[in-house]
Amino acid sequence: MVQTSRHDESAPDSKAHRRKREILQAASRAFRRQGLHATGMRDIANESKMHVGNLYYYFRNKEEILAFCQEQTLTGLIDLAEQIQHQPWLADEKLHRLITGHVVRLNDEMPGSLAHLEVEALEGPWKKDILKQRNRYELILCQIIEEGIETGLFRNTEPGVAAKAILGAANWTVKWYQPRGSHTSREIGEEFAILLVRGLLAPGRRPSIPELQADPQTHQNDAAGRT
Amino acid sequence: MVQTSRHDESAPDSKAHRRKREILQAASRAFRRQGLHATGMRDIANESKMHVGNLYYYFRNKEEILAFCQEQTLTGLIDLAEQIQHQPWLADEKLHRLITGHVVRLNDEMPGSLAHLEVEALEGPWKKDILKQRNRYELILCQIIEEGIETGLFRNTEPGVAAKAILGAANWTVKWYQPRGSHTSREIGEEFAILLVRGLLAPGRRPSIPELQADPQTHQNDAAGRT
Repeated sequence: MVQTSRHDESAPDSKAHRRKREILQAASRAFRRQGLHATGMRDIANESKMHVGNLYYYFRNKEEILAFCQEQTLTGLIDLAEQIQHQPWLADEKLHRLITGHVVRLNDEMPGSLAHLEVEALEGPWKKDILKQRNRYELILCQIIEEGIETGLFRNTEPGVAAKAILGAANWTVKWYQPRGSHTSREIGEEFAILLVRGLLAPGRRPSIPELQADPQTHQNDAAGRT
Repeated sequence: MVQTSRHDESAPDSKAHRRKREILQAASRAFRRQGLHATGMRDIANESKMHVGNLYYYFRNKEEILAFCQEQTLTGLIDLAEQIQHQPWLADEKLHRLITGHVVRLNDEMPGSLAHLEVEALEGPWKKDILKQRNRYELILCQIIEEGIETGLFRNTEPGVAAKAILGAANWTVKWYQPRGSHTSREIGEEFAILLVRGLLAPGRRPSIPELQADPQTHQNDAAGRT
């Protein structure tokens, strides 16, 4: 876990850790509204409805908030990817669920995920750990693509390049997705998953799940019976 | 054209305009190396091998450089999209060429394209014009996707959502692409184009060009005969 504050020792379910996640949610709102670089500690304190002095008790500076944010986002994504990786599904279903979950987590569930993209903005001792986490997530994504290629479900392509396209499409959503727009983040995630997984299918191969069959009738009927 | 400097009146082929593009290339190198926000006018002047006073003659501040950069990038992309749109190709070929060209332009040809992504970093009077250009480019992309859906070559999907996936994958390349890495930007662009265009194809539809047929044998043989 990234060393981010005087509460380094706090367990993920401790009161301090919960408070830090609440601050992150407030910081996230401020970042989305004002931009990452225009947002100062005072704005984050205001948005958190706390005195700036109290905020400094949890985070020494904005960079520490960013590091905590990225660590939280990546931990969540790695958990998701590892859960999916060990299921008895075929690679197309795994990838469909991972892409959908990635978009949902980045836009709904994770606090401050916008900052997830700004690894370049980090200096400090956290950068190395966060890059390591990011590489670990990317590796699992590549392994799922490789699995699809090895079983002949996916066409023969370079997993690392396909992974970058997937990450780009999914990460970019934080730049344009509007929580109050015409689509939920799950709908966007599922559309992206269909596009990107179908793009990987070997010619003539049918996907293993109805969500990916691109026949709206089949898709809707089946999707109603799934979570 | 965006009003960016005391040289607003300068034609694209004037000496002043050429000098501004050279400064942009230098700024781009500095942005890539140090990050957009850590780069100051002095760094850009150093990289341009000019006195900072001279730099201020061309650009009043970093924001003006950003605005000029984005305007140049978007003008180039719109030119490309308009050229492609009016060719007698089917939608899959058009989209293949647009995605490939987008990745190449962002990473090779356009100076300072990293800054293209930072529309949020802009305030000033330019923001409106640049957002208008960005929307215009996105509209052409959507029209090409719509054309494919209408002719039955692409499956029935929402063009706007597919366009966002394409833009995300293509724009994200500036965050990770290394000009001295194992792939050229054209190779990356072509791989992305195959993935994303095949992802749009209606079930059972064969693409109209061999590059998209995902059969490495056919692809290489044919690709050798094309530019």
